[in-house]
Amino acid sequence: MAEYMTETEQRAPGVPPAGTPGVPRGRAGDGAAGPPDGQEAAALLEGTRALVDPALRAAVESLPGTMRRAALHHFGWQHADGTAAAGNAGKAIRPALVLAAAAALGGPAARVAAVRAAAAVELVHNFTLLHDDVMDRDTSRRHRPTVWTVFGVPDAILAGDALQALALGLLAGDAHPAAVPALARLTACVVELCEGQHTDTGLERRAPEEVTLDEVLVMAEAKTGALLGCACAIGALYAGAGEEEVSAMDGFGRQAGLAFQLIDDVIGIWGDSRQTGKPVGADLAARKKSLPVVAALTSGTPAAAELAELYGKPYAAEDAEAAGEIARTAQAVERAGGRDWAQAEAADRMARAVQELARAVPAPEAAGGLLALAEFVTRRSG
Amino acid sequence: MAEYMTETEQRAPGVPPAGTPGVPRGRAGDGAAGPPDGQEAAALLEGTRALVDPALRAAVESLPGTMRRAALHHFGWQHADGTAAAGNAGKAIRPALVLAAAAALGGPAARVAAVRAAAAVELVHNFTLLHDDVMDRDTSRRHRPTVWTVFGVPDAILAGDALQALALGLLAGDAHPAAVPALARLTACVVELCEGQHTDTGLERRAPEEVTLDEVLVMAEAKTGALLGCACAIGALYAGAGEEEVSAMDGFGRQAGLAFQLIDDVIGIWGDSRQTGKPVGADLAARKKSLPVVAALTSGTPAAAELAELYGKPYAAEDAEAAGEIARTAQAVERAGGRDWAQAEAADRMARAVQELARAVPAPEAAGGLLALAEFVTRRSG
Repeated sequence: MAEYMTETEQRAPGVPPAGTPGVPRGRAGDGAAGPPDGQEAAALLEGTRALVDPALRAAVESLPGTMRRAALHHFGWQHADGTAAAGNAGKAIRPALVLAAAAALGGPAARVAAVRAAAAVELVHNFTLLHDDVMDRDTSRRHRPTVWTVFGVPDAILAGDALQALALGLLAGDAHPAAVPALARLTACVVELCEGQHTDTGLERRAPEEVTLDEVLVMAEAKTGALLGCACAIGALYAGAGEEEVSAMDGFGRQAGLAFQLIDDVIGIWGDSRQTGKPVGADLAARKKSLPVVAALTSGTPAAAELAELYGKPYAAEDAEAAGEIARTAQAVERAGGRDWAQAEAADRMARAVQELARAVPAPEAAGGLLALAEFVTRRSG
Repeated sequence: MAEYMTETEQRAPGVPPAGTPGVPRGRAGDGAAGPPDGQEAAALLEGTRALVDPALRAAVESLPGTMRRAALHHFGWQHADGTAAAGNAGKAIRPALVLAAAAALGGPAARVAAVRAAAAVELVHNFTLLHDDVMDRDTSRRHRPTVWTVFGVPDAILAGDALQALALGLLAGDAHPAAVPALARLTACVVELCEGQHTDTGLERRAPEEVTLDEVLVMAEAKTGALLGCACAIGALYAGAGEEEVSAMDGFGRQAGLAFQLIDDVIGIWGDSRQTGKPVGADLAARKKSLPVVAALTSGTPAAAELAELYGKPYAAEDAEAAGEIARTAQAVERAGGRDWAQAEAADRMARAVQELARAVPAPEAAGGLLALAEFVTRRSG
């Protein structure tokens, strides 16, 4: 594992070392101990919010009645009773990728031209969240009750449907020559997102021993990588990039998205609930077949057998020893190598992402923003 | 009522007389007793299927795995076990309106150019059906089990999401100059369809005496009229029509759509279950606040009070007198004037539709196909 990591670090500047999510890191080779890109990413995300939020909010405000209220609640702009809220619309990673990709290949003018497209991508992301929460019966998102728990399942489905239409309508109303190819990519991406969610719900219904690691990786690429890739590709289109650059940008986003999902799954087991917004061990209690869990289950270790036994029984929330069981399950995943594997795989995916980025944007100084965002999403506190 | 009908018949050739759905009619004034346009409409629908089905089927076949199977099942092209089925994808009214509107304003070339757009409109219609069936818990559609009963709620939601994306992707991949304005119209229409469905589910939750007829008419225009109007408007766009003609075409489709919904509601109460595909009296048993029922409830007649009492109690399916109760309920709607009102209102809407059509297509011979389709949908056997 250590040798593998050295290899990826050698070929990929910016790859996070395995085993240290949450530990501030410099780029490999520069010897810095601090997070030089954390501030750049934060500034990019803040700048994205400032540019994209008005378009996003105007689109949501154009919805009629209850769908508007459901969407405003989802984005954290309104409480369930209709009073104004401070807003907690997520980190805006996807629109930030659209704008950063446009800027990397087309400079500030392309970045401004891509604002509508960035809002469209964020609307698509949020439409899928609304529907996923219904399917998964998740009751909490971004520290707030999910839309279906407040407005009911029908209105959550309808609000999601309307957000998809709004997203694609934003692009249809954009006179930029990239709007139509962006639309074509975004609609294909929605189909892939749906397939990813389908695979995910199917995996959750199957016995733990029947699930392979490849299946979960394919699912994660469809469910998370596809939209991050699409965001980068759309940014490239708005910069007037050619097919090869657009495709490399898609690859960059996909691989960074997989790295992001791997780290997200690690955080879902060992993370701080104040930062994740989910109860400690919620993924394990739900017997979720996340990437580290499946890696552990398929490791052939004694800890894998122990984990399989724990996962074979439903979580006993009423049990006085429930917290102890979650801790034992997390330890079994770790002893079976699930945590180390996920971190090494995240590093490998980041290395591939960086390779794709170099193909899309040969000038390193132009690629800085995208790299900073990719490192930011794979370096969240664990 | 008779005077009113005479008035509409005088100003609107082709308006169906009130009180006779299911009775073959000629156009007003021509004295014919037979259905001269029934064959024209049937030929138009058949021609539409022949032109549009390949595009529709290719789009559905492009979906991955389970979503493809769910969609093929929904369109009647595949049984739940994956074996081929004869197909029962509905009457294709909406794509027929797209093609007929294109032909009316742009001749045969526009009709052929609009095939992709016609498939897109049909995909949007079917995406909403998939989701409506989930929300309404309807178990049967077109004489077959609904997708959510066969594939589960998550896959029905995902298949619907994917069909919306496919629909808009079809237009995004269409190089015709009308494709982008058609996309903008279709996405706005999806929002209106969602609002209509939201209003509908909301109305169903409210007490019968709280619902006004205006609310139900507004809901029906959003839920049914909007997409028929959009279909006609998109056809006009593909014929290169100007904004005024496009808007008049939209008005034609909307009014014809309302007439269609009124007749559909009449059929839902007094129709033949072999033709509707629903059990006799299903709408009444579900205490559905359809247009004739709300007209009856708000009529201020003694029968309205009787109906309100029947509707105030849930339907007792176990009761040996269940069938008798349905018959009594239908009679109360009729005695309170609900059936007559619905038929007169349908005639009025058809008259308005014909006025809009004359605005969009001044040459009567060019408007024949659209008129035949509008008459066909409002003349289904009751």
